[in-house]
Amino acid sequence: MSDEKKKSFKGILLLLAVAVVVFILGLFTSSIMERRAESVAKLKVAADLPEWETRNEEWGKHYPKEFESYLKMADTNFRSMYAGSATVDYLENSPELVIMWAGYGFSKDYLQARGHSYAITDIRNTLRTGGIDKSPMPATCWSCKSPDVPRFMSEKGVAEFYKGKWIDKGQEIINPIGCGDCHDPKTMNLKITRPALIEAMERRGKKIEDFTHQEMRSLVCAQCHVEYYFKGKDKYLTFPWDKGFSADSMEAYYDEIGFKDWTHKLSKTNMLKTQHPDYELFMTGIHAQRGVACADCHMPYKVEGGVKFTDHHIQSPLNNIANSCQVCHRESEAELTKNVNDIQKRVMEIRRIVEKSIAKAHLEAEFAWKSGASEEEMKPVLALIRSAQWRWDWVAAANSVGFHSPVEALRVLGTAIERSEKAQGQLAVIAVRHNLNLPIPLPDVSTKSKAQAYIGLNIEELRKDKEKLKATVIPDWEEKAKARQGAIYKY
Amino acid sequence: MSDEKKKSFKGILLLLAVAVVVFILGLFTSSIMERRAESVAKLKVAADLPEWETRNEEWGKHYPKEFESYLKMADTNFRSMYAGSATVDYLENSPELVIMWAGYGFSKDYLQARGHSYAITDIRNTLRTGGIDKSPMPATCWSCKSPDVPRFMSEKGVAEFYKGKWIDKGQEIINPIGCGDCHDPKTMNLKITRPALIEAMERRGKKIEDFTHQEMRSLVCAQCHVEYYFKGKDKYLTFPWDKGFSADSMEAYYDEIGFKDWTHKLSKTNMLKTQHPDYELFMTGIHAQRGVACADCHMPYKVEGGVKFTDHHIQSPLNNIANSCQVCHRESEAELTKNVNDIQKRVMEIRRIVEKSIAKAHLEAEFAWKSGASEEEMKPVLALIRSAQWRWDWVAAANSVGFHSPVEALRVLGTAIERSEKAQGQLAVIAVRHNLNLPIPLPDVSTKSKAQAYIGLNIEELRKDKEKLKATVIPDWEEKAKARQGAIYKY
Repeated sequence: MSDEKKKSFKGILLLLAVAVVVFILGLFTSSIMERRAESVAKLKVAADLPEWETRNEEWGKHYPKEFESYLKMADTNFRSMYAGSATVDYLENSPELVIMWAGYGFSKDYLQARGHSYAITDIRNTLRTGGIDKSPMPATCWSCKSPDVPRFMSEKGVAEFYKGKWIDKGQEIINPIGCGDCHDPKTMNLKITRPALIEAMERRGKKIEDFTHQEMRSLVCAQCHVEYYFKGKDKYLTFPWDKGFSADSMEAYYDEIGFKDWTHKLSKTNMLKTQHPDYELFMTGIHAQRGVACADCHMPYKVEGGVKFTDHHIQSPLNNIANSCQVCHRESEAELTKNVNDIQKRVMEIRRIVEKSIAKAHLEAEFAWKSGASEEEMKPVLALIRSAQWRWDWVAAANSVGFHSPVEALRVLGTAIERSEKAQGQLAVIAVRHNLNLPIPLPDVSTKSKAQAYIGLNIEELRKDKEKLKATVIPDWEEKAKARQGAIYKY
Repeated sequence: MSDEKKKSFKGILLLLAVAVVVFILGLFTSSIMERRAESVAKLKVAADLPEWETRNEEWGKHYPKEFESYLKMADTNFRSMYAGSATVDYLENSPELVIMWAGYGFSKDYLQARGHSYAITDIRNTLRTGGIDKSPMPATCWSCKSPDVPRFMSEKGVAEFYKGKWIDKGQEIINPIGCGDCHDPKTMNLKITRPALIEAMERRGKKIEDFTHQEMRSLVCAQCHVEYYFKGKDKYLTFPWDKGFSADSMEAYYDEIGFKDWTHKLSKTNMLKTQHPDYELFMTGIHAQRGVACADCHMPYKVEGGVKFTDHHIQSPLNNIANSCQVCHRESEAELTKNVNDIQKRVMEIRRIVEKSIAKAHLEAEFAWKSGASEEEMKPVLALIRSAQWRWDWVAAANSVGFHSPVEALRVLGTAIERSEKAQGQLAVIAVRHNLNLPIPLPDVSTKSKAQAYIGLNIEELRKDKEKLKATVIPDWEEKAKARQGAIYKY
């Protein structure tokens, strides 16, 4: 090769090398630009969503990452305390609960809750909401199940929503808990859509606008994960927070207004059913005191394709320790899991003591009535049972087996034991006064089915009635909803 | 000035400047060297201390920083739950305790513990150790009070130390808890000087040599801050750990060997007195699980004059948050204090419920006996009272008002409530069976002095006897000790 040619060849090689480098740089730039574009897409305000878009799939078109993570709830149940079962039957595991709730819906059917995307399926399926022949629940029971609830309220009024029977609003409440329950479709800001929370805070002198964004990351959950009751004949959903958030304060509130959820079928006690005071219990714990919000552990941030977003696969942090606990705690997954288990095991030990004690008190009270005990004799006993079960349920009904605030949970359970054991002591005295032998004879209610039979439940009948509802009424609900909103989505 | 002179002047200035800089450098170097020397002094092994040097002042000559910090205990009492009182009189604050300990020393006198340097003063002063006419306690009671204890044991044998009466060994036990209790005088290594801990660990298959240095930083405390009992007629100090460290395991141990600390004067229950199971409770808590040792919070490291040393001013970490809690926790002193208070307040609420309940059970049991209840009727009641009070005391006798492991503390207290309330229920039944009216009439024991009078204590007599001891016997002890060891030191 001549020198001339050599030079020219070298020039071409150099040119090629430069071209390759430039091409690779271009690829990198393109990749970076794409990620940017994705980030920007995330920030894009979905101005084309209508104010009451209740179909989660429609939101999902604009927020695919959030929606994809939301859909994972369909696969995962919340972490179970009991091995080997995806959805725990609490009544099988603790037949005492059947006795404790005799005369109330929870004695019929009480399964471990599943993810939000099951909200509609599960409220339709539970025996608590009944069938066609018997439909015992008020419309208020739909309140937490769907973004269709605030839509309906905005169209026809809040009080109108709560009115009437559960069975009469099934065609309206179609889409499971989702985007519109917590987000403003115009700005994507967090939004309180349930009036009960706004009203309760206002009675406490607080406006929702006064809360910080971090507080809102718990308050959107507190729309539903709280203690509440159905007020008056129109079953207006109300949070009993006027005197405070503690088990003691809420009990004082209920006692003052003489409220009862139901009359116990065996003991005739004017009972309270505590409804998962997750927010109230959590607020007394160390995580809340350190400024942690529900979403920090149950919906931690996640990065995919350069985009940081909130994981909408709401679940136990124990399924996702790396992104939840380990953001703050520098211990291994095994150790953190052990710490939680150690706490829950202790809380469960005490909870079981209380359950057994209260169930026994109900049965003994029934026996006392049958043996001729007077109203006057029974009055203090029933007051103790009411208070004990309220306090037990204040811990038991809340998620986390006390982990959200173990010390407060055990304090409240401690006061429940005191009351329940006192009730039993007084019942023994009544029995002796009526010349009965001790120990008071108790029925065999050692399994769910035995206990349900004892309290007079015909589960077979309830199941048949439910099947009728599913075969006839529910398809009709879906037809009507389809006509209103287009497709019905199933996960 | 000629150029020559100017140059020469400049030269002198330069020389001076250099001299100044060198001088200052020298000062710095000297300062650094001194600090080094101090550090080295700290590390110097005090080879001239005899094996059983029990005078803390003699150790202090070699370890002035540690000793100076130790002496601060003479000024500071442990943090009080109760405002306005330096040394809390627990019996004044909770007269129920007098009833609960009827027939046992603690009903006479129970003050909040003071720092280690008060160990000898306070054991001499308490009414529990009695006077000359009545000296109820065995020599074993000295076991935790002084480095003279292992000295005596090494000279005359362990069993010989435990034998006999408390009053007979006062001339031997002179120097308050100090250096020789936890350190080897030759190497300054941590050392277990109390055979009870070594023996208990051996029965559990563990040798002291197997523990890490960090574990030793708790184990030296566990020589005394544990549950123990006096075994057999020779009162051999024994830790009841053979079945485990929990309240449940130790109770099972005592039940199996049929042990009692005393028979309750009112209820005739075979009682157990729990002795501050600080180590056992702490080991169930999150701090222990994270590898924290007692010394980390109660004796944190300190730097003075370039020397890092362990602060021997043993006290509540709440008096020293910056060096204890804040080494790990990045929250303000106010917030950390609030967190501890929140926990202790809840534990105290439940503890008080149990105290009132157990005291009532004792009084009602006394009434039942007086009303003719039979052994057979009372047996299950007394078993419940024994178990309830053991469990209450397991938490109450330990330092920290449950903070060392709040969840375990509340679990154990929860089981105490259950037992105590059951006992009361059964007592009510017994009363009714014996045709007595309910509620069972109870005496007025609402103050310490009323309660002490009720259980038949003549406190005035006990005080006079104590004064006699202080006027005659104690000076004699000190004379004898002086003859043996030279000066007697008082802080």
